[in-house]
Amino acid sequence: MAPDSCRARDGAADTLRRVNGRYRELRERLAEISDLGRARALLAWDERTMMPAGGAEIRAEQLATLARIRHERLASDELGSLLDQLRAPAEELAYDSDEASMVRVATREWERARRVPAELRAAITRAASLAERAWIEAREGSDFEAFLPHLERNVELKRRYVECFDGFDHPYDPLLDDFEPEVTTAQARAVLGELREGVHPLVAAIAERADEVDDSCLHGAFPIDAQRRLAGQIVAALPLEQGSWRLDTTVHPFATAITTTDIRLTTRYDDAYIGTALWSALHESGHGIYENGIDPALRRTPLCRPVSLGFHESQSRMWENWVGRGRPYLSWLHPRLRAVFPERFARIDAEGLYRAANRVRPSLIRVEADELTYNLHVLLRFELELEIFEERLALAALPEAWNARMKEYLGVDVPDDASGVLQDVHWAAGSFGYFPTYSFGNVIAGQIWAQAEEALPDLGTQLGRGELEPLRDWLRERLYRHGGKLTPAEMIERLTGGPLSVEPYLRHMRRKMGDIYALA
Amino acid sequence: MAPDSCRARDGAADTLRRVNGRYRELRERLAEISDLGRARALLAWDERTMMPAGGAEIRAEQLATLARIRHERLASDELGSLLDQLRAPAEELAYDSDEASMVRVATREWERARRVPAELRAAITRAASLAERAWIEAREGSDFEAFLPHLERNVELKRRYVECFDGFDHPYDPLLDDFEPEVTTAQARAVLGELREGVHPLVAAIAERADEVDDSCLHGAFPIDAQRRLAGQIVAALPLEQGSWRLDTTVHPFATAITTTDIRLTTRYDDAYIGTALWSALHESGHGIYENGIDPALRRTPLCRPVSLGFHESQSRMWENWVGRGRPYLSWLHPRLRAVFPERFARIDAEGLYRAANRVRPSLIRVEADELTYNLHVLLRFELELEIFEERLALAALPEAWNARMKEYLGVDVPDDASGVLQDVHWAAGSFGYFPTYSFGNVIAGQIWAQAEEALPDLGTQLGRGELEPLRDWLRERLYRHGGKLTPAEMIERLTGGPLSVEPYLRHMRRKMGDIYALA
Repeated sequence: MAPDSCRARDGAADTLRRVNGRYRELRERLAEISDLGRARALLAWDERTMMPAGGAEIRAEQLATLARIRHERLASDELGSLLDQLRAPAEELAYDSDEASMVRVATREWERARRVPAELRAAITRAASLAERAWIEAREGSDFEAFLPHLERNVELKRRYVECFDGFDHPYDPLLDDFEPEVTTAQARAVLGELREGVHPLVAAIAERADEVDDSCLHGAFPIDAQRRLAGQIVAALPLEQGSWRLDTTVHPFATAITTTDIRLTTRYDDAYIGTALWSALHESGHGIYENGIDPALRRTPLCRPVSLGFHESQSRMWENWVGRGRPYLSWLHPRLRAVFPERFARIDAEGLYRAANRVRPSLIRVEADELTYNLHVLLRFELELEIFEERLALAALPEAWNARMKEYLGVDVPDDASGVLQDVHWAAGSFGYFPTYSFGNVIAGQIWAQAEEALPDLGTQLGRGELEPLRDWLRERLYRHGGKLTPAEMIERLTGGPLSVEPYLRHMRRKMGDIYALA
Repeated sequence: MAPDSCRARDGAADTLRRVNGRYRELRERLAEISDLGRARALLAWDERTMMPAGGAEIRAEQLATLARIRHERLASDELGSLLDQLRAPAEELAYDSDEASMVRVATREWERARRVPAELRAAITRAASLAERAWIEAREGSDFEAFLPHLERNVELKRRYVECFDGFDHPYDPLLDDFEPEVTTAQARAVLGELREGVHPLVAAIAERADEVDDSCLHGAFPIDAQRRLAGQIVAALPLEQGSWRLDTTVHPFATAITTTDIRLTTRYDDAYIGTALWSALHESGHGIYENGIDPALRRTPLCRPVSLGFHESQSRMWENWVGRGRPYLSWLHPRLRAVFPERFARIDAEGLYRAANRVRPSLIRVEADELTYNLHVLLRFELELEIFEERLALAALPEAWNARMKEYLGVDVPDDASGVLQDVHWAAGSFGYFPTYSFGNVIAGQIWAQAEEALPDLGTQLGRGELEPLRDWLRERLYRHGGKLTPAEMIERLTGGPLSVEPYLRHMRRKMGDIYALA
């Protein structure tokens, strides 16, 4: 080890000793803020999975209170002055040390929170909770009108939120930044545009060969109980630490971490299509595997989270698609699927299952879309969100705009709002700026997977045997354990030596779909 | 209406207008405190019913943070000065008005909280969470030694808690007061002594006729799935508002209200005895029916709770025993029980079920004890707790003391600590001072039931038809809806025109057991 490095480390140790008391106080304050946030996450999980309907009204208040108090503590003068005192000493430490990262990330969060009144934060949380309840009912009855006032309230509050910030190029920037730190609307537009350009010819070529792939084995009668059992088995065989997760049923699948070793996964079941349960369980488990892999030393800090939602989705999409729709894993899954549904899979071999799982077909529902057209679903939502926040699209006209764009991008007629504009929970939950992260996820997953394939020469063999730990361990070492220390751009650079690039994803898609559909 | 009364009401309206802003601020502060408390309740419910084991360590911290912040807000200078300003005007209002009660009860809570450091409150919560986890394992392995350090920690913290108070006659007084406001150890000792004197001759007389009652129909093979279905049916038929409750499985049954219309009931199942599931579901539902009946206008305030734990237990015991082990309800239950377990109840008629459900037999487990010997279980725990806080009993010697007293009071040999000193969750949860409230509950239930029988001449007929609403409505009007406005002594006086009295309970027991066992 070079003497310079030794000296630097001694200096760092000195620095830490000098500011030890203040750093401890910082950790305590951040721990409290984290606890409040995770308590809120548990209340939200409960609301979506367990809560009797009668709890809804007061639950919205309870969530709002937790959000307000968390916000007050995060935006407090005391935290600000503590961070001020720690900034200079932290800069003497290694950039990705726990301490330097803690001060840097907490400062960023503090600065953003300072701009937003605690009452607005509480109002956003309250409105989202009530809107989500209303959305569940509206979706059941395919009744957009009933949901519209809630949507209007959510958007109005988010407009007021945007007004808390300045110096941005687009009103969507501050919304996007909440999910994808330091990524702008212009960048998102470029990435999604590139994706569209790349995906479009592939979808067109496949459309001419639509009948080459038969996925009828996935459709038909699948009793929910058996599906639930199967989903439980599949998740149990994933590389999630034992005793650190549970799987429940919900209206719109999601995953949330109460801590790194208490991961709440959810899925839903369609009694006429096995794919919903299967790939949404894998998708949410991907989120869980990421959170489960964060260094336990980062628990109860703002670093105890994925780099960004894009990175989070890169892992949900990777475990859902690169693993879960890949030939090796499906060959492992095939006998298990047949064991639970012998009749349905009697005449399908592993290759048939692989082809069925990868059938490309423009469809109505994003979470059930194939790997390729999925991006068009995202693009549509992204564009509509932009138009809403540019005040070019009235919310009452949203179903019409949705349906027109579904026709244009996917060639699909939307039969009702339940399978159209009401299908996703995000707008009910007030999550504007979230959707693009799904496509970022695809892009990032493409880049990371290319690296993984190089680093793990036996990857295919391992996945075929259901040995998922080597991949998980490689991802944990390179990505998961670092939590939210780096920005998305920094992490991409560190992982790949370059910037975000759509090319690996498109290459992967061209290879995979080219093979399945025998494209030129 | 007399002119005097009109003038008083006008005066009250004036008073309210004058202090309106401050009263609104009080409600807001109290709502926040309530939200924090209910969030903590949900985290605790989750810990006991849903949480993966991996969540335990951080959950203890999350609970501690919520407890600390709630405590800080409750003990704050701001709340104190607001209450100061509202005290005089509130006293002009009717004693049991929402406003006067709010100020009075909040002042009492504020004064008690002021004495206790927030850090101690957090430490008590954290230790209890960790101890409960340890208790579950210790109970499984019947390993008191493994639990002892946690018990020691809980007791040490509760001793420090007691030291926060002064002016009491017995160190147990402040602990009891947390559950039973303004009731002293001396009073509790008197009530439990009277109970013992009254119960003893009955138990002795029954012991000579032990074989007169056969409860073998309740023992044998009862598949858990069927039990769960039955428990669900039974609770669904109780007068709980639809969509306002759920029933889950746990190690030690409990009920908790996230709000009046979000009641979490739990039970447990013994595959060799149907009584556990049955009567513990009814017991916990009794708690739920009470909370479900509190005036919704009191939600998010300190008045949104039963009068005391004694009153809470009066309702759990009433629905479990006066209703659930009564002849009319059991005649309604009988065909339903037979439908689920046809073989086991083929040769038992409703009267046989009634007798079986009321067999008196000294036994090991409190929550499964008959109505009569139950009080001896409580007495034993109460006496041990007194000795612990009088520092006359070392915690390491607790199993020995427990076993000796079980032999003395109930004539029962304790085979292992799992069915002895480790059977209850309370000491793990740090709830010292709680146990006597079960016997208070019996006593209060006896008094209330005597009133109900007079007021509802068709009660027996109604219960026999499974019509439980008339009883619920009567209880709601007289007791439930008022929440925690009155002290236990005030409420007993209002309900019965006199003080707490053991006699109605004993009379009920003498009549019921005299009938079943054909006593002289």
